[in-house]
Amino acid sequence: MSDPLDLEALIGPGALGYFAGGAGSEITLRDNLASWSRYALHPRVLVDVSERDLGTTLLGRYRPHPVVVAPMAYQKHAHEVGELGTAEAAARTESLYVLSSQTTTSPPDVARAMEAVAPGSDRWFQLYVFRDRAVSHDLVVQARESGYEALVITVDFPVAGWRERDRRTGFTVEHPVALNPSGPPLTTEQLFAMHDPSLTWDDIGEFADAAGMPVVLKGILRPDDAERAVDSGAAGIIVSNHGGRQLDTTLSGIDALVPIAQAVGGSVDLLVDGGVTRGWDVAKALALGADAVLIGRHLLWGLARGGAQGAEDVLRQVLAELDSTLALLGCPAAADLDASYVGPRAVG
Amino acid sequence: MSDPLDLEALIGPGALGYFAGGAGSEITLRDNLASWSRYALHPRVLVDVSERDLGTTLLGRYRPHPVVVAPMAYQKHAHEVGELGTAEAAARTESLYVLSSQTTTSPPDVARAMEAVAPGSDRWFQLYVFRDRAVSHDLVVQARESGYEALVITVDFPVAGWRERDRRTGFTVEHPVALNPSGPPLTTEQLFAMHDPSLTWDDIGEFADAAGMPVVLKGILRPDDAERAVDSGAAGIIVSNHGGRQLDTTLSGIDALVPIAQAVGGSVDLLVDGGVTRGWDVAKALALGADAVLIGRHLLWGLARGGAQGAEDVLRQVLAELDSTLALLGCPAAADLDASYVGPRAVG
Amino acid sequence: MSDPLDLEALIGPGALGYFAGGAGSEITLRDNLASWSRYALHPRVLVDVSERDLGTTLLGRYRPHPVVVAPMAYQKHAHEVGELGTAEAAARTESLYVLSSQTTTSPPDVARAMEAVAPGSDRWFQLYVFRDRAVSHDLVVQARESGYEALVITVDFPVAGWRERDRRTGFTVEHPVALNPSGPPLTTEQLFAMHDPSLTWDDIGEFADAAGMPVVLKGILRPDDAERAVDSGAAGIIVSNHGGRQLDTTLSGIDALVPIAQAVGGSVDLLVDGGVTRGWDVAKALALGADAVLIGRHLLWGLARGGAQGAEDVLRQVLAELDSTLALLGCPAAADLDASYVGPRAVG
Amino acid sequence: MSDPLDLEALIGPGALGYFAGGAGSEITLRDNLASWSRYALHPRVLVDVSERDLGTTLLGRYRPHPVVVAPMAYQKHAHEVGELGTAEAAARTESLYVLSSQTTTSPPDVARAMEAVAPGSDRWFQLYVFRDRAVSHDLVVQARESGYEALVITVDFPVAGWRERDRRTGFTVEHPVALNPSGPPLTTEQLFAMHDPSLTWDDIGEFADAAGMPVVLKGILRPDDAERAVDSGAAGIIVSNHGGRQLDTTLSGIDALVPIAQAVGGSVDLLVDGGVTRGWDVAKALALGADAVLIGRHLLWGLARGGAQGAEDVLRQVLAELDSTLALLGCPAAADLDASYVGPRAVG
Ligand SMILES: Cc1cc2nc3c(=O)[nH]c(=O)nc-3n(C[C@H](O)[C@H](O)[C@H](O)COP(=O)(O)O)c2cc1C
Ligand SMILES: Cc1cc2nc3c(=O)[nH]c(=O)nc-3n(C[C@H](O)[C@H](O)[C@H](O)COP(=O)(O)O)c2cc1C
Ligand SMILES: Cc1cc2nc3c(=O)[nH]c(=O)nc-3n(C[C@H](O)[C@H](O)[C@H](O)COP(=O)(O)O)c2cc1C
Ligand SMILES: Cc1cc2nc3c(=O)[nH]c(=O)nc-3n(C[C@H](O)[C@H](O)[C@H](O)COP(=O)(O)O)c2cc1C
Repeated sequence: MSDPLDLEALIGPGALGYFAGGAGSEITLRDNLASWSRYALHPRVLVDVSERDLGTTLLGRYRPHPVVVAPMAYQKHAHEVGELGTAEAAARTESLYVLSSQTTTSPPDVARAMEAVAPGSDRWFQLYVFRDRAVSHDLVVQARESGYEALVITVDFPVAGWRERDRRTGFTVEHPVALNPSGPPLTTEQLFAMHDPSLTWDDIGEFADAAGMPVVLKGILRPDDAERAVDSGAAGIIVSNHGGRQLDTTLSGIDALVPIAQAVGGSVDLLVDGGVTRGWDVAKALALGADAVLIGRHLLWGLARGGAQGAEDVLRQVLAELDSTLALLGCPAAADLDASYVGPRAVG
Repeated sequence: MSDPLDLEALIGPGALGYFAGGAGSEITLRDNLASWSRYALHPRVLVDVSERDLGTTLLGRYRPHPVVVAPMAYQKHAHEVGELGTAEAAARTESLYVLSSQTTTSPPDVARAMEAVAPGSDRWFQLYVFRDRAVSHDLVVQARESGYEALVITVDFPVAGWRERDRRTGFTVEHPVALNPSGPPLTTEQLFAMHDPSLTWDDIGEFADAAGMPVVLKGILRPDDAERAVDSGAAGIIVSNHGGRQLDTTLSGIDALVPIAQAVGGSVDLLVDGGVTRGWDVAKALALGADAVLIGRHLLWGLARGGAQGAEDVLRQVLAELDSTLALLGCPAAADLDASYVGPRAVG
Repeated sequence: MSDPLDLEALIGPGALGYFAGGAGSEITLRDNLASWSRYALHPRVLVDVSERDLGTTLLGRYRPHPVVVAPMAYQKHAHEVGELGTAEAAARTESLYVLSSQTTTSPPDVARAMEAVAPGSDRWFQLYVFRDRAVSHDLVVQARESGYEALVITVDFPVAGWRERDRRTGFTVEHPVALNPSGPPLTTEQLFAMHDPSLTWDDIGEFADAAGMPVVLKGILRPDDAERAVDSGAAGIIVSNHGGRQLDTTLSGIDALVPIAQAVGGSVDLLVDGGVTRGWDVAKALALGADAVLIGRHLLWGLARGGAQGAEDVLRQVLAELDSTLALLGCPAAADLDASYVGPRAVG
Repeated sequence: MSDPLDLEALIGPGALGYFAGGAGSEITLRDNLASWSRYALHPRVLVDVSERDLGTTLLGRYRPHPVVVAPMAYQKHAHEVGELGTAEAAARTESLYVLSSQTTTSPPDVARAMEAVAPGSDRWFQLYVFRDRAVSHDLVVQARESGYEALVITVDFPVAGWRERDRRTGFTVEHPVALNPSGPPLTTEQLFAMHDPSLTWDDIGEFADAAGMPVVLKGILRPDDAERAVDSGAAGIIVSNHGGRQLDTTLSGIDALVPIAQAVGGSVDLLVDGGVTRGWDVAKALALGADAVLIGRHLLWGLARGGAQGAEDVLRQVLAELDSTLALLGCPAAADLDASYVGPRAVG
């Protein structure tokens, strides 16, 4: 991870605490990073790897690679270009972009920016189902009308996570948010209080019906919930502990992926996130059953340091590492990665 | 844990050593804290968690939450208000209070203070069975007459623990103790020498009969002892290594809980303690079979820093964390927590 | 372990390196200390522990406790009183004393000193079988004639261990050794070269026959060797990696004990050593099948700091800790310790 | 490992980064060193070890010991004598020498130097199969004509490893390389780009046929690849992750050896490398199924510090440690080491 001192000077202690922090004592935050090294790679030799194909298929659409930009709130606090920076980086690298419903740039503006860079680039919209359903519905309408192809409903945020850094710094969101563009600035407490803690599987069904888009559920960590998601008609599942920001000491995404892939692998798209910083992390996720991987903070530090270009540099490095990993694993097609390339031996 | 330097200035090195210290090389003391992170949480999503119920049932009585104040000796050494401070904090937060038989405030005074704050608040009395049975009996009489509802007989103190900090600091108890209110000040050696090392299951039976109160046995770490406790008519068991203060390198409370719950779960109330500092520790204990959890030092530092208010702040924080945990675990009722919410993966 | 700086001032870097050091990178040396904490204690409650009996039986003779002084060479380098210091400490604490054949005090002098302190005190003699058998035989004769009751033949020293500290400090033995009392001072290389690397089970048989004393084999780490020792008529086995001084990365004594006790437990006396510093270490050894435990360096630091009194203080502390452990384990008789008191959970 | 500061002064940061560095975050680099300590030695006693035989058989030829010099590129960057230094050290210690195809000294010059020191000394030639097959064929011809006895084809380098130190230092090879002796200096990028990523098992077959020498495949980590190597007629396999320089978080050589020895042990010679610095590492490798062990960086630091003599000192120390290990393990013949001498207990 990047040097926080450096970032503190760039974006201030409040934003840094908000972006870098995790829930409680940040045990899960640290474990997210550490967990990848518990899986050792078992490379194969003497395979023709002169051509590598990083491609994966998500929601039936072929994508040139499995690296996805995670939805992250309030990106104008990381860099003045905000979500436009990460979105342009995604468009330039053919990365699927997921826009947070806590975006500080409107969904249509993000869509336009991506299309300007790369016509036909695609993006998904992340949704929190708020107490005031109208707010969520408005966002969905905006997203659908500006060409977002799927709805990522985040289900691990019935209430705000237990984030002690924010209490210490007193961080508040100072940029207007898309869900309340003209209203008065909202405190983080007000923003978090919008989340509906009474949300159930039934609501998801309704929302999915209304959305007119495939629905992906984000924030699942248990095989039984994954099965339920499949039964509910979800087109995809993002195995995630929300970057360790919600409940401390939950298991890591990659540890959760294995039993979930066993339970529902194949019947639905599987994505995973949490602590991904390296191309070989991505390869492990795929080998263990994921179809794609989301990257959060690692990308955000790129945005903070260098705007769109900084974010793009991060994505290009991860993609180059993944490309190198495929070559060195003797598995030229990312889609062919399977559990035989990963062993249980802890390293590091 | 709190910054010891800070506390040393507040309460002096002798009291700090006595309160913070553990037996031997303090391996168990440290493991008590670390052990909670060996259990990872497996949250469930899309459960209506708009209303949370932290309630538990102890000795047949519904209690609004499972956090219990552990019996701790000589609290006037932590703050001049002594036991009244923790007792008032308990009463204000509807926490069950367990008064130590090494209290520096008399049982009736504690009872009165709690009733003044919260009429009907309940409390238990912790008992050491001393060589001189009369001393113990007098305490029981005082406790019964001032409305303590159960007797917690601590069975892990046949002799004093091996505490090297106390030898270094030469700590002695300078406040009169309730069991010898008007007598001359007793040294810790004299106080510890009062404990009866010949105590057996038979004595417990007698004491229980005489007490006219339900008896809870505190300090059990083995399934066979737990079974014996049930056979002996105990109404509850506190799985505990006495905060790592008695015998170094014993297993931790939470590690001991699992086989004990398997052996006697359901037939008797189970409580656990040792190193609890977070609401999610409490949730894990419940998921693994406990009905309630005792908090010791974590609360004591609150008392030392801010008297009754400081202790109350600690309890409120743990309760808020537990409330948040229930929401984020997708288990709105504490009583519904079960082993499916906890996995064996080590984190941290 | 004691502060080496301190000791360096007392005894000089050469002697300190020799005494404190281990083979190679000292991985086994460190693991010897750490290994005890991998076994957690499981105390039992409500047992009458008012009387504790630390006694054990070794070679058919009841001994008041299971703590044995390990044979250690060249003790005059630790303190001018040399072996007389540790021997007197042993006699005063009724500890079995094992005199090294690399002693800087003669076996009869050690015997006389012990008898003076405690008539009837007993001791064993540790033997290296040298290339020049006459040297070893002379030592045995001396030992037998001055009342040593058993011969501890050390079998893990066919060649010198790989000790890098000694090379760095250039340590040499400056005191006359009993096996060459009047000869010219021998270098450590000369002393080590006396060991016979061709020693086999047959030689042991011969030596045992000639000794006219029970034979205990020291330095066994494998169950098959333990079985062979029993077949060869050994009266006892000391499970030991020689304090981590011979071959680095061997397993620890306590880890080796468990399978050895399974293989030969009961048919022969079992002792274990390596890294013992606490009474609860001793209790674990007994619970896992040992009849007694040897203490090496921990005692030596006592000798270095305070001569006979310093060594005695160490022994008394370990015995007091063991006594406390028996009380707190609810197992008043050391001889009754069994595997139920120890669990596999790592602590620390 | 040696003190890098020291080495930085000797050879400069660029060369040090190139030699010492590993892929990615260097997790595998560190694990290579750590992995040896996960295997504990179980010594046997009372075996006549007065004569030790370190010998092993490689490609049907008896060799006096199992320590092999690993092929390492660009050795003139470590010391001006370059490959001649390590080759002479090998010849003087009867160590098998493997010359890198990225040598900065020509194969005939290396052969001549070795013969001058020790007539009849043997050596193998390591080959990368380049895109331009002619380059590789020329090297093979040179090697065969100057008496190299086997071809070590390295198969774990289809593309360059992900080496971040080299990017930071901007290291470039400044000495002419044997594969392009008279041409203009090549950048590391150019050198690495010569590797053929389309290499498959078929190419190996062809190369082996043309070589007229036994072929050993270097860089295998999976049992299935090992089986395929045997089927392809390889005479030997080097289990290796290339010193952690290719793909980060791969398993270590010694961890990979165990299942590979199970799969193909006996049918082909097995060598292993990665992190070997001690004679007891070598003994563990042999006990777990290897016939010999390669040493890379540990030797290189000797070369850097003291040229041929420095490299020789390192080899002599490892051989002396191995000799000592055989004595202390009670296994006088290296060829008799088996799994009974190694247990699974982690030490360190
Ligand atoms: C600053 C920040 C804001 C986030 N905001 C959202 C959000 O609005 N919606 C959402 O579903 N997830 C959000 N997440 C979670 C991410 O989508 C993702 O799950 C997580 O960051 C992955 O872990 P990583 O940061 O270690 O890569 C946020 C994460 C961070 C770090
Ligand atoms: C300073 C102190 C005094 C204690 N005194 C008593 C006591 O008098 N009676 C008793 O049963 N337990 C006593 N205990 C043990 C506690 O009841 C409880 O088991 C333990 O503190 C729990 O561990 P924790 O401090 O890590 O929360 C004491 C603990 C401490 C820290
Ligand atoms: C300085 C020193 C000298 C030793 N000399 C001998 C010896 O002469 N004969 C022997 O059998 N063991 C000898 N040992 C090994 C001890 O008997 C014993 O096995 C070991 O020290 C136990 O480990 P500890 O030091 O961690 O307690 C020696 C150990 C030390 C530390
Ligand atoms: C600086 C350096 C250069 C290397 N060059 C080569 C090479 O040219 N060919 C090859 O097959 N392996 C090469 N290797 C890998 C070694 O042969 C060997 O597998 C590895 O160094 C063993 O790990 P160790 O350095 O920890 O002993 C190189 C290793 C190093 C450190």
